[in-house]
Amino acid sequence: MPEQNPNPNETVSGVLEKLDTALQRGDAKTAAELFEPDGFWRDLVTFTWNIKTMEGRQQIADMLSAQLAAIKPSSWRIAEGEQASEADGLAQSWITFETATARGNGFIRIRNGQIWTLLTAMSELKSHEEPKGFQRPMGALHGAHPDRKTWKEQREAELTELGRSRQPYCVIVGGGQGGIALGARLRQLGVPAIIVDRHARPGDNWRNRYKSLCLHDPVWYDHLPYLPFPDNWPVFSPKDKIGDWLEMYTKVMELNYWGSTTCKSATYDEGTSEWTVVVEHDGEQIVLRPKQLVLATGMSGKPNTPSFKGMDVFEGEQHHSSQHPGPDGYAGKKVVVIGANNSAHDICAALWEAGVDVTMVQRSSTHIVKSDSLMEHALGALYSERAVASGMTTWKADMTFASVPYKILHEFQIPVYEKIRQLDANLYDRLEKRGFMLDFGDDGSGLFMKYLRRGSGYYIDVGASELVADGKIKLKSGVDVKELKAHSVVLSDGTELEADVVVYATGYGSMNGWAADLISRKVADKVGKVWGLGSNTRKDPGPWEGEERNMWKPTQQTALWFHGGNLHQSRHYSQYLSLQLKARYEGLPTPVFGLQEVHHLS
Amino acid sequence: MPEQNPNPNETVSGVLEKLDTALQRGDAKTAAELFEPDGFWRDLVTFTWNIKTMEGRQQIADMLSAQLAAIKPSSWRIAEGEQASEADGLAQSWITFETATARGNGFIRIRNGQIWTLLTAMSELKSHEEPKGFQRPMGALHGAHPDRKTWKEQREAELTELGRSRQPYCVIVGGGQGGIALGARLRQLGVPAIIVDRHARPGDNWRNRYKSLCLHDPVWYDHLPYLPFPDNWPVFSPKDKIGDWLEMYTKVMELNYWGSTTCKSATYDEGTSEWTVVVEHDGEQIVLRPKQLVLATGMSGKPNTPSFKGMDVFEGEQHHSSQHPGPDGYAGKKVVVIGANNSAHDICAALWEAGVDVTMVQRSSTHIVKSDSLMEHALGALYSERAVASGMTTWKADMTFASVPYKILHEFQIPVYEKIRQLDANLYDRLEKRGFMLDFGDDGSGLFMKYLRRGSGYYIDVGASELVADGKIKLKSGVDVKELKAHSVVLSDGTELEADVVVYATGYGSMNGWAADLISRKVADKVGKVWGLGSNTRKDPGPWEGEERNMWKPTQQTALWFHGGNLHQSRHYSQYLSLQLKARYEGLPTPVFGLQEVHHLS
Repeated sequence: MPEQNPNPNETVSGVLEKLDTALQRGDAKTAAELFEPDGFWRDLVTFTWNIKTMEGRQQIADMLSAQLAAIKPSSWRIAEGEQASEADGLAQSWITFETATARGNGFIRIRNGQIWTLLTAMSELKSHEEPKGFQRPMGALHGAHPDRKTWKEQREAELTELGRSRQPYCVIVGGGQGGIALGARLRQLGVPAIIVDRHARPGDNWRNRYKSLCLHDPVWYDHLPYLPFPDNWPVFSPKDKIGDWLEMYTKVMELNYWGSTTCKSATYDEGTSEWTVVVEHDGEQIVLRPKQLVLATGMSGKPNTPSFKGMDVFEGEQHHSSQHPGPDGYAGKKVVVIGANNSAHDICAALWEAGVDVTMVQRSSTHIVKSDSLMEHALGALYSERAVASGMTTWKADMTFASVPYKILHEFQIPVYEKIRQLDANLYDRLEKRGFMLDFGDDGSGLFMKYLRRGSGYYIDVGASELVADGKIKLKSGVDVKELKAHSVVLSDGTELEADVVVYATGYGSMNGWAADLISRKVADKVGKVWGLGSNTRKDPGPWEGEERNMWKPTQQTALWFHGGNLHQSRHYSQYLSLQLKARYEGLPTPVFGLQEVHHLS
Repeated sequence: MPEQNPNPNETVSGVLEKLDTALQRGDAKTAAELFEPDGFWRDLVTFTWNIKTMEGRQQIADMLSAQLAAIKPSSWRIAEGEQASEADGLAQSWITFETATARGNGFIRIRNGQIWTLLTAMSELKSHEEPKGFQRPMGALHGAHPDRKTWKEQREAELTELGRSRQPYCVIVGGGQGGIALGARLRQLGVPAIIVDRHARPGDNWRNRYKSLCLHDPVWYDHLPYLPFPDNWPVFSPKDKIGDWLEMYTKVMELNYWGSTTCKSATYDEGTSEWTVVVEHDGEQIVLRPKQLVLATGMSGKPNTPSFKGMDVFEGEQHHSSQHPGPDGYAGKKVVVIGANNSAHDICAALWEAGVDVTMVQRSSTHIVKSDSLMEHALGALYSERAVASGMTTWKADMTFASVPYKILHEFQIPVYEKIRQLDANLYDRLEKRGFMLDFGDDGSGLFMKYLRRGSGYYIDVGASELVADGKIKLKSGVDVKELKAHSVVLSDGTELEADVVVYATGYGSMNGWAADLISRKVADKVGKVWGLGSNTRKDPGPWEGEERNMWKPTQQTALWFHGGNLHQSRHYSQYLSLQLKARYEGLPTPVFGLQEVHHLS
């Protein structure tokens, strides 16, 4: 029996002291033995200059052996103003520490005197802190300065020069929430960056989607860095409203956003360590020469359009869901939607509301979860008004979520979805009676795990499932498309659906498809598949990776990065990507441990 | 000797209980006797439906006698989550209470068992709370709705209809920070409003000013309602940056902002209780028929241009400071600036920096205070990064400032400026040696009191005073302008200053001048002078008013309101003006006590 320690602060401080001592001595083995044999250390760019989870003592010891001499950690303690807590034998606390070059924070969980999980994350680089709070800029330059440039003159000069007479350090391809959040952090860190996007205005990536679209994640999950939504912001932002927000955010955060800009090609010169990025900006061809290239084209960026027999003979209108304009103009027509995930449901519901005859073709099973249930049971503790009322901040919510290793995350998710399955049994029963093929993920772990593993395969129900259950949206399930004819879609069971319009709600490809388009197939294959954990579940083949493949961290292609995800991920992980870029910009040592291996090409 | 009470919570609760009892009984006299004989009760629209300070027991009793029956106050207590504090015999606490129609909060100070000051302020109208936090809108409309209108469709319909097929309840003339802050609050309260402004875009009122302009108040003082500046916002916003912020704020807060719109005339029909407001909007004449009209044209809105002999013979360029474009284009010229307050200093400094030969003509004394000293000694406790770090919120800072009755505010200010006068003695000495005429207000109470009394007469030094002290900005003081000649300005002491350009930094007139222009001289005289406390100091003639004349409260002209002030006042008082308008919009009883009397026409 471990000795009883009545004070969780002492428990945590005691372990941190031992950890500190071992690390100061460079004793990787002793440090690793402070963990449970199967304990976890998740590091966000402080120890590994990578996003990496070490699983078990051996991996922890290996990482420390490789990194300790360079990282020089110290000053481990319970975070200022925080108290450790203990319940059911689990002590936990917010912590802070330092390395040679950075300040870090994190979260620790201790059972029976041993570390179960440790999260370490970089908060800032020493001597390169963001100018905020006590360090915010003055704005006005007091005194008399004959060579004074006003804010506007400086800003206009930057807009004129950057990318022309002066090169950005970083080019971000894609100006959705991901590129914008990263751009904002780089701006604050003083890293010259240009965001290029094919749309005219920031926010157009949302504005141009089907008209009924609202964010499926609630407002508490969606804050951008630095500038949270106000208290009166809607729970689910309508697409045009989030578009306006992104546009104003880009403006007030002073991002160098090149709209109406298509990225034509990018090549990396290993000799000069420089990219050559050719863009067409408002019709003008411009060559950018950044040191770093970030693809923030969105994990939902590259439409996956199927190749069905007869697509060339079909005489109606056909388009991918990303091109769907919404229901106006389809009244009286027959529409067939191929697919049964989020976009398919949203599009079908809006069409039905507009009086259109619409059929959904479900080819494989879908995970359905009601938005209200998701909010209440899956998100509520971290991201909700009640979380805010109980003192939960966005930062703490993000870090709490990040502190649970992916390896065991599903164990926490399964009971949530078992509960939801019971609570919403009525809807699920009625859907199944209609023939709708339901799943809750291969292991019953539900929505987040599906999202993290494959980024698809679900619908967050905001009303369409009732229409399916009621038969208002017609359903054909368990079938594939055999071929298209001039005025119909023929299914594998022989059914022939009359169709004036076919919508392919067939999802999106891996983000390295963008690398193939922009750079080369060779580089795309070199970095391999983007996204997914290697969980060996459907559409997420093993081996186990432990982290999202290639996201927000170094890849096999020097100076090529992938950024994106939902608003929560864009907010949280942009911090670590921006710090990695800043360190390189400043020429700080960034020894990467455990660079991503490639197991799949796409 | 009063009995010793060791617990300030008990002290405060005890007094609140007695107050509650007396008020419940309708016993105005007993309630008034809970105050010190010269105690103060400042009310922001909860008891008086006015902004009013009752000074001494008699005024308090009179107010209560008139209002108690209608107001029905109850539930006085220490605010939830707050503790009373006590020091040097002064107990104080944040409080809450209710009335028949509203929830209120405030601040109380108790000495020797009696109330010294009481602030009561409306926080919200019952059943008309703002939709925020737990009540925020959903945004998405879940379920199936064949008549669904998207957010964008609704917003576009509103923009098309309001002011044309549907009338706004309120028209706000002037879309600077005042009009915008009020517009945002009305939007949240569901009161249909249109803001009209002659500039094309929100923020142009700042953008179009002289190019070196930055806010003279620091960021902590300047937050707008709902959407505070982020942590990385500059201390002193450059004018174009604050312009961009106002523009994006107007957009994301969904204000109905009519730019490029000139208000031609306004007339009130007492019979229909309706205004007829004629505007020219992008060249089109439109008649608006609101129930309420707010002039938010700015207390610095109507330029005061002097009439000097010879202005018609002067052959150079002459303009009011509000029209001054900044120094570009004046290199090599001789510029004479008439005036010695903020604009005069800013303009002179920018001209000197651009190598212009510039002379400041000081006709009467000016209060100078260094920006750093002001931040540290006058604002620091409430509005600063250290205040934020110590837990001070914008709301608490505003309320703390509001809790000190104007009658005694100067007593708290005098020692601050005595200290500043000592600390910055070197600058003041050097200025006086140059002949600069200094003052600290008639009673030495410094900047805020000058601002509150007359809105002018000072310069917050951000560098120009050094240039004056050094003789780089030339100075002629203690003189007036006798006349202008073709190429010179002749002063009362006979000096003749060569001049290619004359800038009249001669300030602004009372806001009721706008009422005269827009409505009629008769109505302007009916409402009388706007701004000032009646302190019987220079440019603020008595009798004592106790509150800012005509600001944010009912005037002698039904349905005519004045709104404005600095960013702090625009933020804080827009709350009370918006609640007054909302109550009238909803048809709630709003018995006004102590309507503003008129003692001066302008």
